[in-house]
Amino acid sequence: MLTQEFDTIAAISTPLGEGAISIVRLSGNDAVKIAASVFKGKNLAEVSSHTINYGHVYDHETLIDEVMASVMLAPKTFTREDIVEINTHGGIAVTQEILQVLLRHGARLAEPGEFTKRAFLNGRMDLAQAESVMDLIRAKTDKAANIAVKQLNGSLSTLINNIRQEILEALAQVEVNIDYPEYDDVETMTTQMLVEKTAHFQKLLENLLATAKRGKILREGLKTAIIGRPNVGKSSLLNQLLREEKAIVTDIAGTTRDVITEFANIGGVPLELIDTAGIRETEDIVEKIGVERSVKALNEADLVLLVLDASSTLTDKDRELLQLSEESNRIILLNKTDLPEQIEIDHLPSDFIRISALKNENLDAVEEKINAIFFSGEIEAQDATVLSNARHISLVESALSALTDANESLSAGLPVDLVQVDVTRCWQILGEITGEAAPDELITQLFSQFCLGK
Amino acid sequence: MLTQEFDTIAAISTPLGEGAISIVRLSGNDAVKIAASVFKGKNLAEVSSHTINYGHVYDHETLIDEVMASVMLAPKTFTREDIVEINTHGGIAVTQEILQVLLRHGARLAEPGEFTKRAFLNGRMDLAQAESVMDLIRAKTDKAANIAVKQLNGSLSTLINNIRQEILEALAQVEVNIDYPEYDDVETMTTQMLVEKTAHFQKLLENLLATAKRGKILREGLKTAIIGRPNVGKSSLLNQLLREEKAIVTDIAGTTRDVITEFANIGGVPLELIDTAGIRETEDIVEKIGVERSVKALNEADLVLLVLDASSTLTDKDRELLQLSEESNRIILLNKTDLPEQIEIDHLPSDFIRISALKNENLDAVEEKINAIFFSGEIEAQDATVLSNARHISLVESALSALTDANESLSAGLPVDLVQVDVTRCWQILGEITGEAAPDELITQLFSQFCLGK
Repeated sequence: MLTQEFDTIAAISTPLGEGAISIVRLSGNDAVKIAASVFKGKNLAEVSSHTINYGHVYDHETLIDEVMASVMLAPKTFTREDIVEINTHGGIAVTQEILQVLLRHGARLAEPGEFTKRAFLNGRMDLAQAESVMDLIRAKTDKAANIAVKQLNGSLSTLINNIRQEILEALAQVEVNIDYPEYDDVETMTTQMLVEKTAHFQKLLENLLATAKRGKILREGLKTAIIGRPNVGKSSLLNQLLREEKAIVTDIAGTTRDVITEFANIGGVPLELIDTAGIRETEDIVEKIGVERSVKALNEADLVLLVLDASSTLTDKDRELLQLSEESNRIILLNKTDLPEQIEIDHLPSDFIRISALKNENLDAVEEKINAIFFSGEIEAQDATVLSNARHISLVESALSALTDANESLSAGLPVDLVQVDVTRCWQILGEITGEAAPDELITQLFSQFCLGK
Repeated sequence: MLTQEFDTIAAISTPLGEGAISIVRLSGNDAVKIAASVFKGKNLAEVSSHTINYGHVYDHETLIDEVMASVMLAPKTFTREDIVEINTHGGIAVTQEILQVLLRHGARLAEPGEFTKRAFLNGRMDLAQAESVMDLIRAKTDKAANIAVKQLNGSLSTLINNIRQEILEALAQVEVNIDYPEYDDVETMTTQMLVEKTAHFQKLLENLLATAKRGKILREGLKTAIIGRPNVGKSSLLNQLLREEKAIVTDIAGTTRDVITEFANIGGVPLELIDTAGIRETEDIVEKIGVERSVKALNEADLVLLVLDASSTLTDKDRELLQLSEESNRIILLNKTDLPEQIEIDHLPSDFIRISALKNENLDAVEEKINAIFFSGEIEAQDATVLSNARHISLVESALSALTDANESLSAGLPVDLVQVDVTRCWQILGEITGEAAPDELITQLFSQFCLGK
C-alpha cells in the first residue's frame, strides 16, 4: 500500500508531569531533517534506521537538553512514516521547550490522535485496532488492558472480517442462483440457504454480543458509591480500596484539574469511586449534609457499597440507608470485624459480607459478590474476543437487527432480493467496525477523542 | 573507571498517567536477559547496541502489549550499565503489568533516583551534575531549566573544580615554603601570598553566591498570594496567569493527591500560587471566611498580588487589605481597566499597575515589577553559571566563611599553619558540591529525593 504524503507533525507523547523521561515525537517526511537541525551529535540524516543516538538539543546557541534521539525510517514505523522520538530528561519546562523548538523549525503541532490516524490512513492498522490503542491507554485494570491488546493484535478485526467474508460469499451465491436459474427449485434452495446462513450469522453475532456486558464494565468501570453514616469506616474502606497494588488515580484526560476520578481495582473490575470528596471531608460536614448527598450518589451509582458498623447496634440512619439502597445493586458490608460484634444481623438482609477495612480482611468476598451481581458468576473464557467498545457494541446490535429483518422477510415468504438488501446492510454495518465502510466524519471524530501525542 | 557490579533494577520512567507512550526501564547486568525472556520478536540478546526493536511482551502465554524495546549496552549508557527501555502504548494498567512481569523475571524495583545514583557511582557524572538532573525535571520555567541543563553539562562542576585546583596549588606552595625555609623572608612571602590568594578565592565565591538569589527563585519559585475582596477579579487573574502558554500544573512528586500546586510563569519566574482553592470557592464562602484566610496567605507569601476593582470606589475591605499587605513584597493591581475608572487613585500608593485580567492586558508590567522587586532590575548574564540549589548555596556560604576565618587569622598575625587549616576546610567543603568529598549518607539521602525511574 502506498503511504500517503503528509506534513510533519510533533507532540509530547508522554503524560504531562515530572518524570524521569519525556518523549517528543515527530512523524512525517521532514521528521529527520527537522530533528537534525536542532540536534548536535551524530548527523541524524545519516544514521541507520531504528537506532538511538546520544546528543544535545540546541535552540540556536542555547543548550536545551541532553537527549537520546531515536530515528525510525518508513515504512517500519507506527505511522509508516519517518519517525524521530526525542527522549528528554523528563522535565515539564524542558520538554515543552523542545517541542517549541521543533515547531519553530517546521513541524506542526499534532492534533489529538493524529499519529494513530496516520497509522490507520497508511494501512498500518484498521479502525478497530486504532480504537484499541486508545482503549489500551485508558484501561483501568489488567483485564481491561488484556481485552484491548487482543483487539490491537487484530482478534476482533479478524472475527469481523471472517463474518463479513462469509456474508459476502452467501450473497454471491444468492446472486449466482438468481442469475442462472437453471433448476426449478433454485428459489427454494436459495431461500433455504439464506435461512441457514442468517441463523449462522445471527449465532456468531449473538455470541460476540454476549461478551459485551463484561467488556463494557471492564472497559468503563462501575460507578460505585460508598455510603454509610459517619464513623462506620467509609474512609478506611476507601483508602484500603485505593491502596491496592494496582489502584489507579487518574486525571480524566483533557478536562479540568478540579476533577480527579479515582478508580479502585477489584479483581480486574475497575470501580469508579464517586463522591469520594464527600467521604474525605470531616465527619461533621458529612453529618450536616446528611443523607441528601447519599441519595444523589445512589442515583448515579451502578454499584452501592453500604457500610455498617458491626461493632455497634443499628441506628435510625443505618435503617434509612438500608431502605434507600434497597433497589440498587447493593453490597452490605459489616465493617470493623476486628471488634466484638454488636450489630443485630437478623434485622439485615442475609447477603451481607463481614470485613475489616482497617485490617484489609475479607475484601476478596466483595470481589466474588461483584462477579455474582454483574457477570452472573460466569467464568470468562481466557481467549475469547470480547466486545468492549460502545461503538462496536452498538454496530453489532444494528447488524443483528438487520439479520432479524432478513429472517422475518424470509419467514414472510418475501422475495429473495428483498432479503438480500437486509443481509447486505448487515455486511456494511460490520464494515464500519474495521473502518472499511466508515465515513470520513466518523474517522475524524473518533481520532479527535484520542490523547495528544498518540 | 571500572563499573561497579549491581543487580538489575526496573521502574516506570515516564510520569504516571494516560499518555501515548510509557517507558519501563531496566538497568544492570541482566537487563538484556530479563527483557529478552518476556519479549517476542528479535532475540534481544543478539541485537546491536543502541537499536530499537519491535515486538510483543508476554506474561507466559498472555499477550501484554505491543512494544518497542531499546537496547543500549554498557558503557555508553546513562548508568554505564546495560539498559533496556521498553516503550509501551502508554496505558497505566498495561505499563504497571509490564513492570510486574519484569520484576517476576528477576529485576528488582528501583529505588527513587537509583538509575542516576548508578550514573554517579559509575563515574558518568559528578554529584552536582546528578542533582541538576532532578533540578531539570523539576524546573518550572525555561529559565530554570536552562540553569539546570548548564549545570548538567558541567558548568558549575568545572568552576568548582577550577577553584579547588587553585586552592590546592596555593596549599602546596605554602607547604613547600614551610618545608624549605631557605630564605629569611619566607614567612612574610607566604603570608603575603595567602592574603592575595584568599582574597582571590573570596572574590570567586562571592561572585558565584551573587547569582544564588536569582537562581533560587528561578528554581523554587515565589510563593505568591492573590488577595482581594470578592468580585474584584481574583479568579479571572488566576485563570489568566495559568492560561499562559507555558503555565504549569503539577502534582508535588510523591505527596498525596489532595495537594495540587499550581505554578504560573511570569517572564521565566515561576510563581507558586498559594491558596488557589480559596479563590476558586464560591464568593459567598470567601465572604464568610473573610480576611482571616488572606492574612494566612500573606504570611506565607514571598509575593502578594493585591487586586482592587478599578471600576468601583475603594471599600473598607480594600483599605483593610491595603494596610495588611503593607509590609509584604506587594504589587497592587487595579483590575477591570476595560470599565470606566472609579477608584480613588490618590488614596493609593503610587506604584500600582493597571491591568485587565479579562482582556489579558498589561500583565507584562507585572513581570517588570517582579524583576524590579526581586532582582533589583539587574540584567542576567546569559552564560553565567548560576547557583540555584539550596545545598550548593549553603556549601558555598560555608566555604566563604572558612576563607573569612583564614583572612582574620592572617590579619591577626597567626601562624601560617593555622591559616592552612581554614583554607583546607574551604577546599573540602567545595568538594562536597561535586561529591568528591561527600559522605555516603549524604549521597543516599540526596538520591532518595529523586523521582522514581530516574
